[in-house]
Amino acid sequence: MNELYQILNKLIGLTKEEWQDFYTKLNRKEYNAKTVIINEGSIAQNLYFIENGLLRTYHLQDGKEMNTYFACDTQFISTFSSFISQAPSFETLEVIEHSIVYELSYKKLNILYQESSKFEKLGRILAEKNYLCVLDRTLTMQTKNAKEKYLEFIKNYETKIVQRVPQHMIATFLGITPESLSRIKKEIFIS
Amino acid sequence: MNELYQILNKLIGLTKEEWQDFYTKLNRKEYNAKTVIINEGSIAQNLYFIENGLLRTYHLQDGKEMNTYFACDTQFISTFSSFISQAPSFETLEVIEHSIVYELSYKKLNILYQESSKFEKLGRILAEKNYLCVLDRTLTMQTKNAKEKYLEFIKNYETKIVQRVPQHMIATFLGITPESLSRIKKEIFIS
Repeated sequence: MNELYQILNKLIGLTKEEWQDFYTKLNRKEYNAKTVIINEGSIAQNLYFIENGLLRTYHLQDGKEMNTYFACDTQFISTFSSFISQAPSFETLEVIEHSIVYELSYKKLNILYQESSKFEKLGRILAEKNYLCVLDRTLTMQTKNAKEKYLEFIKNYETKIVQRVPQHMIATFLGITPESLSRIKKEIFIS
Repeated sequence: MNELYQILNKLIGLTKEEWQDFYTKLNRKEYNAKTVIINEGSIAQNLYFIENGLLRTYHLQDGKEMNTYFACDTQFISTFSSFISQAPSFETLEVIEHSIVYELSYKKLNILYQESSKFEKLGRILAEKNYLCVLDRTLTMQTKNAKEKYLEFIKNYETKIVQRVPQHMIATFLGITPESLSRIKKEIFIS
C-alpha cells in the first residue's frame, strides 16, 4: 500500500492521521481473471485502487464487447459515471489478469469528503482526469486514422497494458478490426 | 447575481461571508454576438457564469465548425479541458447572442479551493458534470440514429437553446446535415 500512500501524498498531501483514516476505509480484495466486479445495469458501489493486476471496462454494442478502458498496477478504476452519479452502469468492470485491489465505497468516500478538503480535492482531480481521458479518447476516435489511434494508445497507456491486454480487446478499444491492428503493428515494427 | 448565489448555495451551501468572498473574485463582462472569448490554441484563463445570453464552443474539423456545446442563462461555460489543464484549447468559445457573463479566473478559483472545502466541492461537481456530459454525448453520437440524437438534444438542452441556436449549428452538433435536421423536425412535428 506504500504506492497508494505515495500517489495520494503527491496529489493532495496527507498527514499520518489522514492516511490512517483513509486506509481504514479500504477493503483489500483479490479477484481471479474473468471475474466480473461491476455488471452492466448495476450501480457501481466502489472505486478501486489496483495494487497489482490488469482490469478493463467494456460495454455491449450489437452484442459485441467494446472495450472502453484498461488499468493496471497503481491505477484507479471503476465504471466511473455510474460511481459518481450512483445510476445504473452502462459498462461492465472485469478482471483480465488475477488482481489485488483496494476498494473504497461511495459512502465512505463521501464521509472523507466531509472530513477534509484534501479528499474533496482528490475527488475533483479524479473527475478532471476522467473528463480529460474521455474527451481525449472521443477526439482520437473522431479525428485519427487507425495507425494514429494505435500510436496514441501506446503513448498514453502503460507498457504492461500495451503488452498484456489481448489483441482483440485492444482492437475493439480502438474501433478497428484485429486484422488492421496486426497490420499496423507490423508496419510500426518494420519502419 | 441572485441566480448564481442560489445555484451555488444549493450545490455547496454558502455563508454570507463565503458568498461575498466569491463575488469579489468575479468580473462582470458584456459581449456582443459573434465575439470570440477564447480562441482555439490559446489557454482558457476563465470560467464563465452566464447571467443572460447564449454561447457555444466549437472546433474546426477539415475546415468546418463542429459545435460541441451550447449554454445560456444561469449556466457555466468555458473551454473546460483547457481551463482545468491550463493547456492550449482545441476549441473556440464564441458568443451567439449578446451576453452578460461573470468570469472567474483559474488563479482566483485556485485561491478559493485553498480557502474552503466548499469550493473544492464546487470544482469536483463541475468536473463530474462535464465528465457525464461529454460521456453522454459520446455514447449518443456512437449509438443513436439522427432522430434519436435530436430527441436527446431537445430533452437535455434548455428550451432557449433548442429554439434560438441557429439550425446549421445544431446540425453539426448532432453530426447530421441541415437537411436531415429539417426532415427530422418535420417528422416529429407531424407525428
